[in-house]
Amino acid sequence: MTAAQPGSSLPGSSLPGPELPGPIDPPTRLLMGPGPVSAYPSVLRAMSAPLVGQYDPFMTASMTETQELYRQVWGTANEATMLVDGTSRAGIEAAIVSLVRPGERVLVPVFGRFGLLLAEIAERAMAEVHTIEVPWGQVVPVSTIDEAIRRVRPTLLALVQGDTSTTMNQPLDEVGALCAQHGVLFYSDATASLGGNPFEADAWGLDAATAGLQKCLGGPSGSAPITLSERAVEVVRSRKRVEAGIREPDDPEASDYVRSNYFDLGMILDYWGPRRLNHHTEATSMLYAARECARVILAEGRDAVVERHRLAGDAMLAGVRGLGLEVFGDVAHKMHNVVAVEIPEGVPGDAARAAMLTDFGIEIGTSFGPLHGRVWRIGTMGYNAREDAVLTTLAALEAVLRRFGRAVPPGGGTEAAADVFRGA
Amino acid sequence: MTAAQPGSSLPGSSLPGPELPGPIDPPTRLLMGPGPVSAYPSVLRAMSAPLVGQYDPFMTASMTETQELYRQVWGTANEATMLVDGTSRAGIEAAIVSLVRPGERVLVPVFGRFGLLLAEIAERAMAEVHTIEVPWGQVVPVSTIDEAIRRVRPTLLALVQGDTSTTMNQPLDEVGALCAQHGVLFYSDATASLGGNPFEADAWGLDAATAGLQKCLGGPSGSAPITLSERAVEVVRSRKRVEAGIREPDDPEASDYVRSNYFDLGMILDYWGPRRLNHHTEATSMLYAARECARVILAEGRDAVVERHRLAGDAMLAGVRGLGLEVFGDVAHKMHNVVAVEIPEGVPGDAARAAMLTDFGIEIGTSFGPLHGRVWRIGTMGYNAREDAVLTTLAALEAVLRRFGRAVPPGGGTEAAADVFRGA
Repeated sequence: MTAAQPGSSLPGSSLPGPELPGPIDPPTRLLMGPGPVSAYPSVLRAMSAPLVGQYDPFMTASMTETQELYRQVWGTANEATMLVDGTSRAGIEAAIVSLVRPGERVLVPVFGRFGLLLAEIAERAMAEVHTIEVPWGQVVPVSTIDEAIRRVRPTLLALVQGDTSTTMNQPLDEVGALCAQHGVLFYSDATASLGGNPFEADAWGLDAATAGLQKCLGGPSGSAPITLSERAVEVVRSRKRVEAGIREPDDPEASDYVRSNYFDLGMILDYWGPRRLNHHTEATSMLYAARECARVILAEGRDAVVERHRLAGDAMLAGVRGLGLEVFGDVAHKMHNVVAVEIPEGVPGDAARAAMLTDFGIEIGTSFGPLHGRVWRIGTMGYNAREDAVLTTLAALEAVLRRFGRAVPPGGGTEAAADVFRGA
Repeated sequence: MTAAQPGSSLPGSSLPGPELPGPIDPPTRLLMGPGPVSAYPSVLRAMSAPLVGQYDPFMTASMTETQELYRQVWGTANEATMLVDGTSRAGIEAAIVSLVRPGERVLVPVFGRFGLLLAEIAERAMAEVHTIEVPWGQVVPVSTIDEAIRRVRPTLLALVQGDTSTTMNQPLDEVGALCAQHGVLFYSDATASLGGNPFEADAWGLDAATAGLQKCLGGPSGSAPITLSERAVEVVRSRKRVEAGIREPDDPEASDYVRSNYFDLGMILDYWGPRRLNHHTEATSMLYAARECARVILAEGRDAVVERHRLAGDAMLAGVRGLGLEVFGDVAHKMHNVVAVEIPEGVPGDAARAAMLTDFGIEIGTSFGPLHGRVWRIGTMGYNAREDAVLTTLAALEAVLRRFGRAVPPGGGTEAAADVFRGA
């Protein structure tokens, strides 16, 4: 066999040249599902900025700026605040495989699909995984977590903050002290919640937290902000092994090194740190996006953005109730940025969602597991935590419900939501 | 401890609000290093396209289109052709951890840093790793690979195609037949070479191949194209385990499941396949970028793009020689898209690179390991495999060399390169 010559026909091609698709040209969508959501326009613009080299002074300065911006977003002084190049679950896996050695115990309180994911990832990392579960639609009482920590004595507690599968927002503020008391590392997956709900990495005693851009941070999926406490960094450093090819004679080579190269936070730290030791090639455009997400949020004010999410979430909740719909779960513990709406009897859930998308250009979400076919999930997050987005969605939903034969109070949704925005 | 209230001061913040940096605004750079390189302008534009939902018909159609485009780029009919969300080494790790079970043998011929990386990743995946090495600047003779396969009898042969650390382009065209003969899976990392040098996944008998966008494909780092043969897919399917939370009662649960969730190609296949089973949330903007990279290449013609890289590479080679510089390594096996130039005696390598960047806005590369301080690496790839980029770089290099006291033939670089472009 020899190399194909220039001009030879392409093997395996079923798409002839002339039928090459055109440049990407997406339809206009208002994304009001559980995420991904429409990005802030300035985030989209940031991604079309030209590339620079990975050790260009502009690049390393942008990385440093991004770290400082995310310290503010997370509410932390952690030096080890950076990005993992991948989607939100890349951040989760990096945290878990770097903090937990095979055979060590991980405790995962489960209150929805993403708790199951943390357990799954820890199991694949060969941890001894213990779960405690509450019914979907509830959060886990702190006393239950306390009891389980005493019983299991885990190395790591892995706890989702906001689980979009159920819309619940797990209180974290008392958990860090419990973990500290028992010498347990405390990790939280804040993918669905960060930026739209309070999060205080230092005040709550987090040792590790990860997120994604595609929810309340208002960017595209593909970059995972992460922050690590000094205690977490010590664990990571103790397992340090610099890869062959760039290892120096005096670099340590721990025998219990992380069983992933890509997710080895020790090497990722060296890349983001003063040594700037080559690991991956930082995803420049995603870095620009992540930087702009944080910048937009901090320019508005981190707490003001959370408050905007609270207001939009309250308005959407009032709106769907104003349409006579029921809401799933313990509303007192609902995240600001998503609501699970019971699909009313007689309305075909998927057909109604399709009508929202096709006829109004508005996306609302379906659901997973026990809630599949039972609830829609409607989000109000990031750029779309806005009055016009909320009212437009409710107006469209009213029209669609009526089309499918559901009697709804005319204007009941938009009026109730507008009242919330007016502070009535 | 309680949650911070809206309006409370930000803990851990060392960057006061008023000093928030502005929108990203990179300096103009001509990136002529070993990658990342300047992206095609249309790729940058594609990334600023609005987001759509992850199951939007437009999104799934764009994923399907992207798969078909990459089949043509790879030269394959493989159904299992898709993207891994992460940088190029995410694709490498996904291929290796999904194809190799702990304890299985992996053979890695090493001819530069990235062979060491494949060995490192396989070792972390708990494979029994065997390497064969040749000196930097050479490729591995096929007879040596043949001998090693017979001796080691590996499950997988992992072989870099183009190693930017040495600029060598390992011939692959006879290796697939050897692997097939011995029942060995054949994987190649084509990160540095794909798009700029011939690559024929099917004709060469590849079972798996991965790349990144940031080299000859002319996009940003952050998405890893991958293609898998039917034989590779069988291995992946035999290890299938659908994650908890979305697992159906009749889903298999292999006991030898992949020890990573994020890199489990079985689940990634289900996400890209007709089942569209949720795994990660596809990085929409990076998908747009990857799609546009392939589209630009196929619109010009895949083989025409390779030829453009050959021409630009030949011109750069002639140009640096025209400046009286020596080139490292076996030039007969050099990749089209990068050349290693011996730093001339008396010229401070890093200061000269800095002058290129600061005074001319042109980036050329440093090097790793045994070549560090000895060669610069100059790339001509993707969008920058162009006459004006080559001539501009050579003109700047001439000026910088002269500034550092090196006697160079006036116009010797640009004239030699222009001759190549003129076919003289």
